[in-house]
Amino acid sequence: MAKGLFITFEGIDGSGKSSQARLLADHLKTEGHDCLLTREPGGSEGAEEIRRLLVEGDPDRWSAETEILLFTAARRDHLEKTIEPALAAGKTVVSDRFADSTRVYQGAARADLRGVVDQLHSLMIGREPDLTFIIDMDPETALARGLARQSGEDRFEDLGLGFQQKLRAGFLALAQDFPTRCHVIDGNRDMDVIAAEITAIATQALS
Amino acid sequence: MAKGLFITFEGIDGSGKSSQARLLADHLKTEGHDCLLTREPGGSEGAEEIRRLLVEGDPDRWSAETEILLFTAARRDHLEKTIEPALAAGKTVVSDRFADSTRVYQGAARADLRGVVDQLHSLMIGREPDLTFIIDMDPETALARGLARQSGEDRFEDLGLGFQQKLRAGFLALAQDFPTRCHVIDGNRDMDVIAAEITAIATQALS
Repeated sequence: MAKGLFITFEGIDGSGKSSQARLLADHLKTEGHDCLLTREPGGSEGAEEIRRLLVEGDPDRWSAETEILLFTAARRDHLEKTIEPALAAGKTVVSDRFADSTRVYQGAARADLRGVVDQLHSLMIGREPDLTFIIDMDPETALARGLARQSGEDRFEDLGLGFQQKLRAGFLALAQDFPTRCHVIDGNRDMDVIAAEITAIATQALS
Repeated sequence: MAKGLFITFEGIDGSGKSSQARLLADHLKTEGHDCLLTREPGGSEGAEEIRRLLVEGDPDRWSAETEILLFTAARRDHLEKTIEPALAAGKTVVSDRFADSTRVYQGAARADLRGVVDQLHSLMIGREPDLTFIIDMDPETALARGLARQSGEDRFEDLGLGFQQKLRAGFLALAQDFPTRCHVIDGNRDMDVIAAEITAIATQALS
């Protein structure tokens, strides 16, 4: 059986990463790869229920510590029920966000929590992606896009531009921490140009 | 300001621990102590929402690992929003269940998880009670009581008598692990006899 890859997309809200994740999954399917598109928080029945607790409501509803625990609970369910079974069946899994989002979002909210996030990941998750695309773009543009959606899931966008700038810096730092699997992609370009760059990298990794 | 105590009640479902927690809190209030009665999972607005994910639905809905993470998330919220502020204000807090329940329930479900529970507790919770009453009773009688309630929160009772017997053994082992704070109380007696024993121990600890 062909071995699939675990590919993740990361970046600030409004960076276009969800669209790019979908475009890559569609392309891989067209090329004959057995490919599963999923997302976090969510991606399994239980994790979607936890997602509702996380993305709706007041930005100060949960402390950063409780938030990390909820994200990790949702991730554990997503990993067990969706990601690991698909990888075991030889599929490629494309996930819109994974553990890097927790590292960056909670690390940006409270710098001293990055150690806790890493220990929790090592204790309860363990798995890292094979390939991660970090879609990098101007936070002001991304924020305007994110808010324009009015999805009702705006807890993080509500935290404002300063927070989005910290997030961007966090994702760029992360790419340096994990240089083998992380590719920083310039998201300030046409969607098809970005998609072509991502497709080329993913196709090479899969061959 | 008088220093309050953090007192917890533990035991299998149907052991009468919730009634005893309420009786103790009522007694302490009558004696002039500023006392807060709370419970787990739950005890704060956010934790009660997480509680609903934990106590309702199919017993196999969550893996033991995901369950531990959800209980710990609820506990962290409960600790931050309810327990710590009350203790800081000099109150005595009486909680129907706390971390010992996770140690015993998840340890009973899967013996190899006790280490994970302990590491997670140390990383995200830290706090231990000053005094813990373990209400010990015959699992068959307790199970009949628990099921008779038909509370719609029967996920753990649904796991059957063998599981309840493991839980009982787990709570008794826990009392040996934490001999200073844990008191094993024989729950196979009249409610007022049990309450008198508990009241005597708590009153001495508070004096």
